[in-house]
Amino acid sequence: MAPMETNVSMRVIGVVRTSHTGLETTPIQAALNRAEHATIEISDAYADGLDGLAEFDYAWLLTWLHAPDRPAGPVPLRQVPFLLRARPRRMGIFATRGPRRVNPIGLSLIQILQVAGPVIRFAGVDLLDGTPVVDVKPYVTRFDAPPVRPRCGWFDQVPIEDGATPARLARGGKPPGEDGQ
Amino acid sequence: MAPMETNVSMRVIGVVRTSHTGLETTPIQAALNRAEHATIEISDAYADGLDGLAEFDYAWLLTWLHAPDRPAGPVPLRQVPFLLRARPRRMGIFATRGPRRVNPIGLSLIQILQVAGPVIRFAGVDLLDGTPVVDVKPYVTRFDAPPVRPRCGWFDQVPIEDGATPARLARGGKPPGEDGQ
Repeated sequence: MAPMETNVSMRVIGVVRTSHTGLETTPIQAALNRAEHATIEISDAYADGLDGLAEFDYAWLLTWLHAPDRPAGPVPLRQVPFLLRARPRRMGIFATRGPRRVNPIGLSLIQILQVAGPVIRFAGVDLLDGTPVVDVKPYVTRFDAPPVRPRCGWFDQVPIEDGATPARLARGGKPPGEDGQ
Repeated sequence: MAPMETNVSMRVIGVVRTSHTGLETTPIQAALNRAEHATIEISDAYADGLDGLAEFDYAWLLTWLHAPDRPAGPVPLRQVPFLLRARPRRMGIFATRGPRRVNPIGLSLIQILQVAGPVIRFAGVDLLDGTPVVDVKPYVTRFDAPPVRPRCGWFDQVPIEDGATPARLARGGKPPGEDGQ
């Protein structure tokens, strides 16, 4: 297809509050850090949109993963995913879940613990403190689960451990200290 | 949280080509229309980012559901979901999967059939022809499936039938003609 110049504009509807301040030490996926809790503060103007969300166990949290300290310019279309850091291999970005994308939209499966006014308390944390929120959608098994267990490409060939962070994956999955770093 | 004025800008990376031209007759979810096939044309500039995607059975297709014929102005924060049209009940938009959202990002679980250059052929169609694409992410069971079957709020109380469209749901789920319309 020929290049499209169209841009669209999104509103930030809230912000995530977590204990994480550095990308390298933040778990790479919510599912790998289910025990940790954090909160989402939705702007008061949108709080009425949360009506009914507390009746769901899980939700998709869509965020904007813009990192001001990343190099400017176009994003590389092939990158080494965090999970392949120990045996570097580049994959197309649309075959990865990495944060450095053409549009850095984060998709996190969070467990809803409580909805109180404009604040959502949740479990499953893979986001830096202050990450802007652009949407919340309820998880619906009928819509969001493939009918049979699917092939998952290169993810099927790598160990995926709870608590994985970029820093830890750079050391081959070892916790700090075990390899002298 | 106090209102945030921040806006972010997204690039359109491609376009969906389907047989559907009217919202009312388009299936409401990819999972309810798994037999239909369609294509995604990714802009040539981003085609290298598809490297590796063919090894996945499923992917998340993120789209921009802007409908130019919708009423201007702020989106209602409580709406009657398509699935509740026959027994109208308003839900907060963040507890629905409807297309009329603060940020109209569509999240469709598609089955990858083929990736050929910049073109993705897929099964599971819930999008109008010409819908702009903003991201593609591989489906990864380890990240995207809740550990146990979750509560799914009001969706657990309604029949969810294959082929459901807004028009059909407005007739209580009956195909055209059965109620004289």
